[in-house]
Amino acid sequence: MYYSIGLDYGTNSVRALIVDLSNGKEIGTAVYNYPSGEDGIIIDKSDHNLARQNPSDYITGLEETIKQAIQEAKKSSPDFDAAKVIGLGIDTTGSTPLPVDDQGEPLSMKEEFKNNPNAMAWLWKDHTSYEEAARITELASQMHPEYLKKCGGIYSSEWFFSKILHCLNIAPEVFDAAYTWIEICDWIPAVLTGTKPDEVKRSVCAAGHKAMFNKQWGGLPSKDFLSKLNPKLGDLRDRLYDDAYPVGTSAGTLTADWASRLGLPEGIVVSVGAFDAHLGAVGAGINTGTLVKIIGTSTCDILVSPSDKELADIPGICGIVDGSVLPGYYGLEAGQSAVGDIFNWFVNHTNSTHEDLTKKAKDLKPGQSGLLCLDWNNGNRTILVDQRLTGLMVGQTLHTKPEEAYRAIVEATAFGALRIIDRFEEYGAVVEQVVNCGGIAEKNPMVMQIYADVTGREMKLSTSAQTCALGSAIAAAVTTGNENGGYDSFEKAQAKMCSLKSLSYKPDPKNHKVYQQLYKLYCQMHDAFGLKDHQDCLANVMKDLLNIKESVNS
Amino acid sequence: MYYSIGLDYGTNSVRALIVDLSNGKEIGTAVYNYPSGEDGIIIDKSDHNLARQNPSDYITGLEETIKQAIQEAKKSSPDFDAAKVIGLGIDTTGSTPLPVDDQGEPLSMKEEFKNNPNAMAWLWKDHTSYEEAARITELASQMHPEYLKKCGGIYSSEWFFSKILHCLNIAPEVFDAAYTWIEICDWIPAVLTGTKPDEVKRSVCAAGHKAMFNKQWGGLPSKDFLSKLNPKLGDLRDRLYDDAYPVGTSAGTLTADWASRLGLPEGIVVSVGAFDAHLGAVGAGINTGTLVKIIGTSTCDILVSPSDKELADIPGICGIVDGSVLPGYYGLEAGQSAVGDIFNWFVNHTNSTHEDLTKKAKDLKPGQSGLLCLDWNNGNRTILVDQRLTGLMVGQTLHTKPEEAYRAIVEATAFGALRIIDRFEEYGAVVEQVVNCGGIAEKNPMVMQIYADVTGREMKLSTSAQTCALGSAIAAAVTTGNENGGYDSFEKAQAKMCSLKSLSYKPDPKNHKVYQQLYKLYCQMHDAFGLKDHQDCLANVMKDLLNIKESVNS
Repeated sequence: MYYSIGLDYGTNSVRALIVDLSNGKEIGTAVYNYPSGEDGIIIDKSDHNLARQNPSDYITGLEETIKQAIQEAKKSSPDFDAAKVIGLGIDTTGSTPLPVDDQGEPLSMKEEFKNNPNAMAWLWKDHTSYEEAARITELASQMHPEYLKKCGGIYSSEWFFSKILHCLNIAPEVFDAAYTWIEICDWIPAVLTGTKPDEVKRSVCAAGHKAMFNKQWGGLPSKDFLSKLNPKLGDLRDRLYDDAYPVGTSAGTLTADWASRLGLPEGIVVSVGAFDAHLGAVGAGINTGTLVKIIGTSTCDILVSPSDKELADIPGICGIVDGSVLPGYYGLEAGQSAVGDIFNWFVNHTNSTHEDLTKKAKDLKPGQSGLLCLDWNNGNRTILVDQRLTGLMVGQTLHTKPEEAYRAIVEATAFGALRIIDRFEEYGAVVEQVVNCGGIAEKNPMVMQIYADVTGREMKLSTSAQTCALGSAIAAAVTTGNENGGYDSFEKAQAKMCSLKSLSYKPDPKNHKVYQQLYKLYCQMHDAFGLKDHQDCLANVMKDLLNIKESVNS
Repeated sequence: MYYSIGLDYGTNSVRALIVDLSNGKEIGTAVYNYPSGEDGIIIDKSDHNLARQNPSDYITGLEETIKQAIQEAKKSSPDFDAAKVIGLGIDTTGSTPLPVDDQGEPLSMKEEFKNNPNAMAWLWKDHTSYEEAARITELASQMHPEYLKKCGGIYSSEWFFSKILHCLNIAPEVFDAAYTWIEICDWIPAVLTGTKPDEVKRSVCAAGHKAMFNKQWGGLPSKDFLSKLNPKLGDLRDRLYDDAYPVGTSAGTLTADWASRLGLPEGIVVSVGAFDAHLGAVGAGINTGTLVKIIGTSTCDILVSPSDKELADIPGICGIVDGSVLPGYYGLEAGQSAVGDIFNWFVNHTNSTHEDLTKKAKDLKPGQSGLLCLDWNNGNRTILVDQRLTGLMVGQTLHTKPEEAYRAIVEATAFGALRIIDRFEEYGAVVEQVVNCGGIAEKNPMVMQIYADVTGREMKLSTSAQTCALGSAIAAAVTTGNENGGYDSFEKAQAKMCSLKSLSYKPDPKNHKVYQQLYKLYCQMHDAFGLKDHQDCLANVMKDLLNIKESVNS
């Protein structure tokens, strides 16, 4: 009987999960809501693009959740013994980089930068860096078009170098004080293993998907390229990294200090971290042909494809990275910048609840409301890669009801999901089955049925409600290896520890037919508002509105 | 000391107003809310286009309000004596035609047609007849393009013949049972004066604006034309009318029966009726160069231009009719299909109130929300004349607040108002000042300030809160004439009885500048979604959504 622990750092909270390695049974779990800011996010009322996090929340949450999960495991499984925990795996949001000193201490933990959002972790959904992102895309297109080919053709404001360059532009004192920048998926393992920044084994998942890391061009973008963006950014490259590693690699072993604080054995392995969606895909049992959708506040879509088989570059997706999900496979990432976040935004301003709206909305027929939405309230990650797109709803009459608008928003996210599947398949990546996980997939049958009806595909569900944490626990088991109570390979671990629910959502052909008509209109609006130089061009509208907004706020 | 009574039939209620003819002072008033349907409107949950009214509500309301207003006048003015009431004027919504028998009795008052919405009054905002409207427009374009030139170029689903033809198509038993059809602005005077259908002096306001009546082509459209739409419609023409009259003409005198029921002198004059907005413009003191905006659930915009001066046809407006507002002037009508109705629709689905939203929205700067709306939740009356357009909101983020959406909706109606002013002026009708009246103009300073800032024009207010009823009372006074205690002319009556408030709303140049940018985007969206064959054509989107909606509902 051996166990591993998966630590899953989400947008608003961190979760620890203790898993029985023989069967994947989840015997203890605990959640810690980040206390800082609004639901754990430091925001700026005058700039909706800003989203930061306080790194000290991560550390407190780590200790609280592991200790509590151990207590829960003891209660639920009398056989459980913390001494039988053989490893720790970590997944986090990303790209969420933070500036640290040469000892790996976050600048925000120093008196000098206390309460300075620029010295904190720059949360994945921070969109302040859109100008820098455009500049990086422009320069890469000229100097190194290959840099962009593996990350969908456009460098995003959500990503590593955009954020660092923006910090350099708006808060040079923070940039100058930082020895280096580190993704939180690399920082947490470094903390637990006592590894200094220069020695940290950085995650290829973060490096490849968000920092243009690829062995084809020698790792990170060249110093020359980064220097053209800003000489100081070029200098920073020397203090970043030359190698990057897939999950299943050891990041080091748990320090004596942390072992004692957490009540775990000293010296157990800590796996190299990865992003939540990627390890969520592992926990959902991903393999060739399986699209794993992790549906929460936002959505990540993960596919894998054997790395020994050639695969075309796919414009608009968030990257094709060897080893980012499973060693030996290309990991393909796509996603929608907001899903549950849009549902919550809508509900918070009605005189109703998710439950009430769902109850009324589920009985509506597709097309019945006459409404159509674009699901861009937080921009569009895939396939437009444009954070300066905004939401749209059309078709309102004086009789339009909140449940109709609610359903239209759900449908819009389903249309967005279908657009991603279509893009994968247009470029030869096959989607044979769709496995869903995450809170919304678990809790809202209406949403899942709409996704099935819109896509015309069966929506399957992973058995685990915590696939990200489970994937991290699996990564820990594989890192430990068979000889130490873990597993030789991800395939073997997944075969024992992952499964699908018997419940699934099958498309209703009649509904699918109506949704095909609506999808055509969605695509028309999508292209008119989203594509520059499109023939029916309204692509200026959302941008002009934002420019006006900024000019009146400045 | 003489008095007259104005009766104002609105969308949800009827009001009686007793006015002192020496100074316009309003000494007694009473309102009766129509008890039938929802807020007085018979609706059909499966067809948002349907809106009917129960004619018996009109009769009950007439008696209740006049009697109550007399009581109130006695209380407020001890000098008041009902024997000194010298006339009655009537304004109503329209086009609101109803089918009647040869005695003028509404079919809906007969046992056979009780509770049959098709036998009731077809309220102005009933949009069930859009297919018939398109057919009438098409046929007139081929056979008699002149018919359309005076009503904006497109015949509307809100108008007389569209509704009658639709009734003939969907409820032939109702059509067949009707001797004739009559606007309620003609029916109420007929009731009060005991005039049979063939003898009724029909209002040129209703006839000219809604029934293509014009002396240039001999009155109503030709029998030949109507017969091509349907032979039975051609036959009906013989039972309609050959002449039509401006306000200030006598429709007859009050019958002994009604005099006794109402407590008024027998034989006093009843003026030919007109639409509420047109008499509202009279009550607001309209003259050449004054645009009167009556802002309520929907909006009517009225201009006059001397009939001895040539005036171009103006595409997209609701008509240019000699005498429809004042004798000797062309009356020009335009309007927005929903204004207050959109505000109410929005508020009813939030967890807030008009007061709260206004409080928060008034402090927002123009452009600050990044939102832009099209105010078409009830279609677009002017300048697109298309009831099958729907609402749109663009620019939502996850931080968008209800007050921002509320303000964006108000702004959209202001942009729509400006588009109308621009259209008038493009075709040579001069707008020298803007006078506002109606509930919203009275009660919501934020709305008026936004209208000033958007249009760059001062928004003035009429003193009377009841300009429609006041205009009707003035019409009664002019019909009675100077010799009987009234007035010789509208000019003289208006000079004594109408005035402007000292309060007005002046545009803020800084806000106007931002709104000019937003208006440009509004026009871009307006044209893209509203104009067929436009270069950035998304004009199919709203129609396709409605077609899908109808197909799934059928």
